[in-house]
Amino acid sequence: MLTMHEINRSVEQALAEDCPTGDITVESTIPADAMGSARLVAREPGVLSGIEVFAAAFTLQDNRITISKAHDDGYRFSTGECLATVAGPVRGILTAERVALNFTQHMSGIATQTQRFVDAAHEACTKHGTKEPWIVDTRKTLPGLRQFEKYAVLCGGGHNHRFGLSDAVMVKDNHLAAMKEAGLDMPAALRAIRSKISHTTTIEVEVDSLAQIPLALQGGADTIMLDNFSLEDTQRGVELIAGRARVEASGNMTLERIPDVACTGVDIISVGALTHSVKAIDLGLDWD
Amino acid sequence: MLTMHEINRSVEQALAEDCPTGDITVESTIPADAMGSARLVAREPGVLSGIEVFAAAFTLQDNRITISKAHDDGYRFSTGECLATVAGPVRGILTAERVALNFTQHMSGIATQTQRFVDAAHEACTKHGTKEPWIVDTRKTLPGLRQFEKYAVLCGGGHNHRFGLSDAVMVKDNHLAAMKEAGLDMPAALRAIRSKISHTTTIEVEVDSLAQIPLALQGGADTIMLDNFSLEDTQRGVELIAGRARVEASGNMTLERIPDVACTGVDIISVGALTHSVKAIDLGLDWD
Amino acid sequence: MLTMHEINRSVEQALAEDCPTGDITVESTIPADAMGSARLVAREPGVLSGIEVFAAAFTLQDNRITISKAHDDGYRFSTGECLATVAGPVRGILTAERVALNFTQHMSGIATQTQRFVDAAHEACTKHGTKEPWIVDTRKTLPGLRQFEKYAVLCGGGHNHRFGLSDAVMVKDNHLAAMKEAGLDMPAALRAIRSKISHTTTIEVEVDSLAQIPLALQGGADTIMLDNFSLEDTQRGVELIAGRARVEASGNMTLERIPDVACTGVDIISVGALTHSVKAIDLGLDWD
Amino acid sequence: MLTMHEINRSVEQALAEDCPTGDITVESTIPADAMGSARLVAREPGVLSGIEVFAAAFTLQDNRITISKAHDDGYRFSTGECLATVAGPVRGILTAERVALNFTQHMSGIATQTQRFVDAAHEACTKHGTKEPWIVDTRKTLPGLRQFEKYAVLCGGGHNHRFGLSDAVMVKDNHLAAMKEAGLDMPAALRAIRSKISHTTTIEVEVDSLAQIPLALQGGADTIMLDNFSLEDTQRGVELIAGRARVEASGNMTLERIPDVACTGVDIISVGALTHSVKAIDLGLDWD
Amino acid sequence: MLTMHEINRSVEQALAEDCPTGDITVESTIPADAMGSARLVAREPGVLSGIEVFAAAFTLQDNRITISKAHDDGYRFSTGECLATVAGPVRGILTAERVALNFTQHMSGIATQTQRFVDAAHEACTKHGTKEPWIVDTRKTLPGLRQFEKYAVLCGGGHNHRFGLSDAVMVKDNHLAAMKEAGLDMPAALRAIRSKISHTTTIEVEVDSLAQIPLALQGGADTIMLDNFSLEDTQRGVELIAGRARVEASGNMTLERIPDVACTGVDIISVGALTHSVKAIDLGLDWD
Amino acid sequence: MLTMHEINRSVEQALAEDCPTGDITVESTIPADAMGSARLVAREPGVLSGIEVFAAAFTLQDNRITISKAHDDGYRFSTGECLATVAGPVRGILTAERVALNFTQHMSGIATQTQRFVDAAHEACTKHGTKEPWIVDTRKTLPGLRQFEKYAVLCGGGHNHRFGLSDAVMVKDNHLAAMKEAGLDMPAALRAIRSKISHTTTIEVEVDSLAQIPLALQGGADTIMLDNFSLEDTQRGVELIAGRARVEASGNMTLERIPDVACTGVDIISVGALTHSVKAIDLGLDWD
Repeated sequence: MLTMHEINRSVEQALAEDCPTGDITVESTIPADAMGSARLVAREPGVLSGIEVFAAAFTLQDNRITISKAHDDGYRFSTGECLATVAGPVRGILTAERVALNFTQHMSGIATQTQRFVDAAHEACTKHGTKEPWIVDTRKTLPGLRQFEKYAVLCGGGHNHRFGLSDAVMVKDNHLAAMKEAGLDMPAALRAIRSKISHTTTIEVEVDSLAQIPLALQGGADTIMLDNFSLEDTQRGVELIAGRARVEASGNMTLERIPDVACTGVDIISVGALTHSVKAIDLGLDWD
Repeated sequence: MLTMHEINRSVEQALAEDCPTGDITVESTIPADAMGSARLVAREPGVLSGIEVFAAAFTLQDNRITISKAHDDGYRFSTGECLATVAGPVRGILTAERVALNFTQHMSGIATQTQRFVDAAHEACTKHGTKEPWIVDTRKTLPGLRQFEKYAVLCGGGHNHRFGLSDAVMVKDNHLAAMKEAGLDMPAALRAIRSKISHTTTIEVEVDSLAQIPLALQGGADTIMLDNFSLEDTQRGVELIAGRARVEASGNMTLERIPDVACTGVDIISVGALTHSVKAIDLGLDWD
Repeated sequence: MLTMHEINRSVEQALAEDCPTGDITVESTIPADAMGSARLVAREPGVLSGIEVFAAAFTLQDNRITISKAHDDGYRFSTGECLATVAGPVRGILTAERVALNFTQHMSGIATQTQRFVDAAHEACTKHGTKEPWIVDTRKTLPGLRQFEKYAVLCGGGHNHRFGLSDAVMVKDNHLAAMKEAGLDMPAALRAIRSKISHTTTIEVEVDSLAQIPLALQGGADTIMLDNFSLEDTQRGVELIAGRARVEASGNMTLERIPDVACTGVDIISVGALTHSVKAIDLGLDWD
Repeated sequence: MLTMHEINRSVEQALAEDCPTGDITVESTIPADAMGSARLVAREPGVLSGIEVFAAAFTLQDNRITISKAHDDGYRFSTGECLATVAGPVRGILTAERVALNFTQHMSGIATQTQRFVDAAHEACTKHGTKEPWIVDTRKTLPGLRQFEKYAVLCGGGHNHRFGLSDAVMVKDNHLAAMKEAGLDMPAALRAIRSKISHTTTIEVEVDSLAQIPLALQGGADTIMLDNFSLEDTQRGVELIAGRARVEASGNMTLERIPDVACTGVDIISVGALTHSVKAIDLGLDWD
Repeated sequence: MLTMHEINRSVEQALAEDCPTGDITVESTIPADAMGSARLVAREPGVLSGIEVFAAAFTLQDNRITISKAHDDGYRFSTGECLATVAGPVRGILTAERVALNFTQHMSGIATQTQRFVDAAHEACTKHGTKEPWIVDTRKTLPGLRQFEKYAVLCGGGHNHRFGLSDAVMVKDNHLAAMKEAGLDMPAALRAIRSKISHTTTIEVEVDSLAQIPLALQGGADTIMLDNFSLEDTQRGVELIAGRARVEASGNMTLERIPDVACTGVDIISVGALTHSVKAIDLGLDWD
Repeated sequence: MLTMHEINRSVEQALAEDCPTGDITVESTIPADAMGSARLVAREPGVLSGIEVFAAAFTLQDNRITISKAHDDGYRFSTGECLATVAGPVRGILTAERVALNFTQHMSGIATQTQRFVDAAHEACTKHGTKEPWIVDTRKTLPGLRQFEKYAVLCGGGHNHRFGLSDAVMVKDNHLAAMKEAGLDMPAALRAIRSKISHTTTIEVEVDSLAQIPLALQGGADTIMLDNFSLEDTQRGVELIAGRARVEASGNMTLERIPDVACTGVDIISVGALTHSVKAIDLGLDWD
């Protein structure tokens, strides 16, 4: 999901953004040959994500810097734990530190938030003996950071929704309205779409009411998204669909609502807040 | 602060990220010649930021789309207010919608959060008759989005700290330790730095204790940052410095702590949370 | 499928490749203010693809050049037909001509070749009253030109297979061998894959023998690709699968073999030769 | 002719095109630490071209992959021969395989086709005791791949025509018509061109009839291109020019026509089909 | 020689270099809607070059700015002459002014210097009735600015040498030494080179002594460069070559030496100082 | 000041500019496995700058080339001194040689010119016992080369003015005129600017007469630039300012005027000619 190509591209861009014409503090204080080491330490508990990006920030700044990971992405850490060590030229470490932390704190923030949602669903479903749904992200990501954010969702135990507009069909009311003007009702519209897209591509349909569900099934939807449904309607939707399509619950999914929604039997709960309103996890670099 | 060059570059990148090989839903449902219009509507109150970026997302997707701003950046809106209208080819509007919103919701989130801090400082200082400090951002920004985030801080009534490592000196303990090994105490270190940098560049020194303040003054610091000082020490620091340098309070600056810190007489309060942990403002596109 | 962003990027690259430091012939022979017009004429019959790319080559070279399309992509033309007219500064038209033709001749070559395969399948199935399969492309495309080539396949009446490695799963023998070492047989392997990918993503499995088909079905494959199957085995495979997964026939699909394979009842026939060994269609620019 | 800079740029672009957000099949099936090796094997005879590009595809995907060349570019291989071995992380090998093959199969296709033309000319000239002409390419190359294609022509024993519009003058009827309007006949036009270009740059003139040849010679053309001349006229052209300029035969040069044209005494035969209508050579990766 | 593609690329890079995150002076002083106009005025005499680049700097900064050229490139101006007028938003004009001037002053500096050399050669040759040689540039250009500098040489009445390493052969002592180790003397070496390069490409040989000239001629050199020859040897070289190759004089060509060298009968005098040590021409923007 | 990121970016661009499609001379003369070494030798005295850029040109061309520095940047060398040695594949060394020299000769030219100004100021001030001013550069740099040129100024003992429009405020007459129209005199204007910019940013004001100095001081200018002041007025300006702001002398600063200006007590002398009209230092590569 997160390619080295993308890590290198984004980290180099971030380093140039922070330090376009040199680190004037470091250049006027730290000798070029000063060597040192530091530890990446958690200042609050969370789930780790982005340790390779953290490493890339330093090695792309100065390839003489070495990083030793203490843990892999997905690790649940406590306050005070050491997550990695960094060693090499002090200049490079100081210059790249902020970029390294900006990525990792944000990604770990997403992973931590995701894990809270996953845990909430898991506990509720375990307790009620219901099937546990996937917690998935949305396209509400920060511009330029989608690969990083979607990867962080995986680190937190979540799953990914489609990457963007090119890899899956998501039919909403606007699309259906346009098809209707062309004389196609929902089943006909979905079949028309299917005839044009790749056979490897799936169709998800957003429905606003229970009444639309039979039409979506008739059209052969792969996934039906219940948009802003009440808990009761969600449950009825699941029963109506009865395994003939995947069921996604969506719309204002807060941590508080997860246990109830999770137990309705939906396959997927999509949560915009995993990525659009993330609290960074407090991580810091402690020098030895 | 936010150049058209940067808007174009980032928006094009974001459009390509979301839609690398075409919007397969729109292409299989919406006629190429369908025209329509929609309104950008606030779903919660906030401060507007990024309206030009919002516009650029649509015009860079299809230059036949026109945008009419109802308000400029910095406007404080209420729930339900229309902030702009978008008109043109339906395909382009639907394809660019998410990118446009992702930028504007994030930027407005920062502006709104900043405004809360600025208001809190303003009210406290007005009440106590003390000088009102600037609320400024930090380098804790999301990679690749610094110009957008720093601009959003301005929209919320805040001010900007240095842009990055190249445009101002910020001396911290690591730098001073290295200078000490070279036989230079803080005053000598600061004078050594001054002799190397541009005369247009300022020096800010981070101090951990009141004891360091006289040394920073002696070295000619332009700004002294009181790092994680108690309220009392902050006040003593301001008195000690007595206008001979700018005073910045920093470290764990929550909205709750702002009124008290603001009334200590510091010139600047820097708040990482303006940018590193932003809640997006809920904005939506309502079709006519 | 073919975005303006990609057209602009590739055409600008191609113009710079052909004319890095100016067209020294044109600059030393044609007055800067000479105006003229020319027609894009077919020198052999074919299916048109890339008319927007053709236009972009001229307008990106000199935005005063105007292009009038006589036909849209997908049009089946005969020798001698005029497909478009170009008018404007002679210098720009001459400089961009070769790039415009290189794109359009190659894309029309693919569309023409695709149409031959689609027609062959159509005729055979019409004659035999069998369901007509889709003719789809592969990843055997020329580096940097995938969007153009996949779009050209659509112009010729074909369909697209997955775009690349990121948007659909294709399980081959190497992948299954690795899973087997981890103790997972094919059904378990497919279920393990399903648990990790997005719910919007499909799984296609390549099978080498009829014996593997039940395992693929058991694992829940969305599409089963019969790799280099004989005609008889293909037919048996279709019967065995019986609509529980899509069936793709693949491997050395020449125009001669299409009628027979098409009548076996497979859903999809993938043809590498649509893109990897394309004969350009002869198009030329005739000056008025 | 083929710089490492260009190989790296194009291969990185191709890898990102095929795998923009990760190889989801490999990531969900192959352990990150699985190691393996495979051989590049010819499935039909041909001439090798692009072995360094093949190698770069793997090493740019994962620099731990090593490639051992069994043969250098230009080697004439038979069906079943091993051309190189690849060893290292299985993930990287599988992910880069298609890109590596797409380049090498296309380039070897060009080299093989070129060699056929070169051999045909060689045999005919040897038999008739005439001077052997060069087989050269044209600007009818695939956008973005010119360096690769022109290099492949060299591998097949051919020579290169000018790289593009910037490095040599090629005067055609349109250019001469414009000069005529300015009052310059062909000799005057060619002298005018010569007075403007670099002394390191040559002038080639395309002529449509024998009557134009004395004018081209009078103007000092370095090369005279006989465009779509009959065999007889070609021979007469060669005699007329009598070594005072290089002679190039051009226009619809099929393999069948080469022996006759080659024996007319022309210096150069340019063949668009070397690059614009290439059949890929079938190469495959066989795992050990 | 100077493409719009290159102008746009370089000017955009230069604008971003000078103004990466906004013009903080203009933004805090000039209203966004302030309009104004200014004139480009010569503060010393010279030859104009780069007026299109000047224009592009303003229009790429803000496309509402309009430029009216008073003169074309190549114009010889006196102190105080107006060369162009600029009108539009004051902000954009002020922000782009320095970039526009930096290009035009440097390019006009080169054109002016070139014209001095061309004039010196012209006057001497006119006086002595000898053939006037071309004044040409070298590869001693400033990195990234070669197209601009070579174009400026043309504006000053000079000619261009090869653009770079890819478009013409220049054989020096190192190359010959390597060929000699392979058993090839100069004539054999030159013939070997000829057999590998395009027929559109020329060969220039640098000789250090008169003795090498017959060998260069024997090998078929297109141009022979007399490197650091005395005036007498230059004259003898010209006589020895006797029109069988072009003759280039090179090495420490100062303005003082030009008249004498020009009258030796050489075809070309190459002057590194045209581009590597340029005095900018003083141009300024005067506001109306 | 000069980041590895910028060195790599610019050197790669320069190598591609000089050698876009291969070094056809080297490829047809030098064996791929030929190894050799050469020395960078000064052909005239000067100050070294750009030795890392010199090294990067070779290693980016071929990473098997090794460079040994004999001296660091800032070293004052005499004619004939060896500054570095280069060893490795002869092909790569010959191909990269010109780019390496073009950077280093230009940068050393700037360093050498700067050192002359610095020495002139130093000698005059030592003799007269006055405070020695800094010699600083301006924004009159060559497009795309600013980091390199500003770094070279440091190598020559100079200091840097602001990098560009984004990192410091420079108020000139146009800005003040606009503010005046808005009803703000100079002190009010400067205070208005201060209220908008970062606290880390300084304000410099250009004044044309002594009368403006008290206003600039009143407005809190950090630096006052005396633009084209006579020697007497400069001295009066210094007395008037009396340490309340830094004083910069600017305008037509030739080497001849430096001693007198330096002794007036100004803090800074800015010299456009350090970068806009540079004579390259003659350096060459001598093969062993």
